[in-house]
Amino acid sequence: MASMIFTDCSTSTMSRLNHLNRLNGAFLPRPCVGKLSLPRTASGRGCTLSIRSSSSPSAIVINGKAEAKKIKDDIKIEVSRMKELIGVVPGLAVILVGENKESATYVRNKKKACEYVGIKSFELLLPEDSSEEEVLKSVSGFNDDPSVHGILVQLPLPSHIDEQNILNAVSIEKDVDGFHPLNIGRLAMRGREPLFVPCTPKGCIELLHRYNIVIKGKRAVVIGRSNIVGMPAALLLQREDATVSIIHSRTENPEEITREADILISAVGQPNMVRGSWIKPGAAVIDVGIKRVEDSSTARGYRLVGDICYEEASKVASAITPVPDGVGPMTIAMLLSNTFTSTKRFHNFQ
Amino acid sequence: MASMIFTDCSTSTMSRLNHLNRLNGAFLPRPCVGKLSLPRTASGRGCTLSIRSSSSPSAIVINGKAEAKKIKDDIKIEVSRMKELIGVVPGLAVILVGENKESATYVRNKKKACEYVGIKSFELLLPEDSSEEEVLKSVSGFNDDPSVHGILVQLPLPSHIDEQNILNAVSIEKDVDGFHPLNIGRLAMRGREPLFVPCTPKGCIELLHRYNIVIKGKRAVVIGRSNIVGMPAALLLQREDATVSIIHSRTENPEEITREADILISAVGQPNMVRGSWIKPGAAVIDVGIKRVEDSSTARGYRLVGDICYEEASKVASAITPVPDGVGPMTIAMLLSNTFTSTKRFHNFQ
Repeated sequence: MASMIFTDCSTSTMSRLNHLNRLNGAFLPRPCVGKLSLPRTASGRGCTLSIRSSSSPSAIVINGKAEAKKIKDDIKIEVSRMKELIGVVPGLAVILVGENKESATYVRNKKKACEYVGIKSFELLLPEDSSEEEVLKSVSGFNDDPSVHGILVQLPLPSHIDEQNILNAVSIEKDVDGFHPLNIGRLAMRGREPLFVPCTPKGCIELLHRYNIVIKGKRAVVIGRSNIVGMPAALLLQREDATVSIIHSRTENPEEITREADILISAVGQPNMVRGSWIKPGAAVIDVGIKRVEDSSTARGYRLVGDICYEEASKVASAITPVPDGVGPMTIAMLLSNTFTSTKRFHNFQ
Repeated sequence: MASMIFTDCSTSTMSRLNHLNRLNGAFLPRPCVGKLSLPRTASGRGCTLSIRSSSSPSAIVINGKAEAKKIKDDIKIEVSRMKELIGVVPGLAVILVGENKESATYVRNKKKACEYVGIKSFELLLPEDSSEEEVLKSVSGFNDDPSVHGILVQLPLPSHIDEQNILNAVSIEKDVDGFHPLNIGRLAMRGREPLFVPCTPKGCIELLHRYNIVIKGKRAVVIGRSNIVGMPAALLLQREDATVSIIHSRTENPEEITREADILISAVGQPNMVRGSWIKPGAAVIDVGIKRVEDSSTARGYRLVGDICYEEASKVASAITPVPDGVGPMTIAMLLSNTFTSTKRFHNFQ
């Protein structure tokens, strides 16, 4: 599931910015937070990480970490109720091939999240030189295992294995990543319902819903057209009656298009690509990109930076996700949600 | 296949407008055609069908009828070569349920087109009160029949039959309409290839190609998000690296978006909805809509009118499809092309 540009990192200097002012469902500009000492390190594309001026208007910070926590807590209660009533424990199988460090971290985070909510996780670590047949056999085994309700193949796979073949082999009833073309086709079609929606774009839309950001009739722009985020995010926004435009590497003057967006979702993994001047005043901005940028002033030696030049954008937008602690934690929450939904469907549990 | 708003009508007053000036692959404004006596009847939404002024610049008319003829002639040669070399005749099965007059006309046209190119057509006319099971059984029979390479269920089906169930039952290898969600999913995904692309949007893109209209990097706007035209047309444009926006009934101020389109495809079935002022000067305009509009001055008592106010648009656009004889004939040509492609795939014929 998901590529390496997505994470669910849970700590960062950015998390200090996460606070929210909500009154009767409406958003108020959050009050001046004074002078925050954000690192001044030069980051990609010349976005100025200036000290926040106390006179600038500021966007509501969409707290993905907090929302993900609420979702996980809800799932935890539901999982426990299911176990009590019908004795079933949801099961999520994760297949990891090879020793990609970042993949291993994601798998560990998923396992931890499963434990938190009470979902049983089945981890299968296959050696880097496993054959396609061996991976297919493992997928097939989980397809047939009634204690497994969701199957996730951690991407990327070693280059000698055909990703399509592996993903196509996952039973559509257990495709909790929502990457099977049949699920994507249903997502694209009016009047059809996918069994699962890919986790990261689902998390983006869930955040918009939870912050009462109107989608219907609004102009939405998605930057990036990947199979795992950009494209399904655009399809989801369209299902909710937004007027959607998709920007990609071949788009000329993308800023002219983004400036028309009431809702902007960026998922390209280009640090600080989207400047404040790209954003329509009052827009809701969702940043899916996440990259390490060297920063000697931090203990780790790097910071995590999104596609959006946060400091500039937060002065123009009405609501914005931070990086990290924005979309990242929602991805795992949606994976747990998809796994639980799958279990309910298998056992006809309401 | 396709809904009632698509047709392949082959005669009309509009056909008098079909002529083309092409020089070395570049488009020149076509010269003044003098005073054409187009009917002055009031048509939908107040589009003025004024007498064409000789001083107005005029768009190239994209002659779908002529291009469809060329495609059919090419297929005819290929079908004949296939028969000669491997003794195989492509087969297209059409299932028509009930006695919808328009559907019957389309089926007749398809049969005629099949005969023209040498494709064997199998027609199955089922009574209006056929059960879903009976229709499914027919689909299944054609799925198993090796002399059938394409199956087409004429839409709309009677209301007691679940369209989804029927379309899903068509073998994906014979889904020449390209409506199966697995084909749509592959169409939406980067790096995947659908077995078939829906005929009408495929015909639109084919016309753009045949008129050397650049798609890559251009702004494209699709009006309408139907499963059979708007949505797949948007996906196709995106596959060719256009920056695509989709407009629909919930879009506010659609004309602000269409005015940015280098390529505009309209597929809503609202006569003359798109006015000249909606169009960017120099845009290529593809009109998929087709509706009957009462017109006592014609022998039939009606005219066929597209979504685009042709008289206005043709003064602003650089290229435009007429209605009829624009996209309509291309739909059937693409159906024949899909059927032939399917046959080649079944018999591994190059």
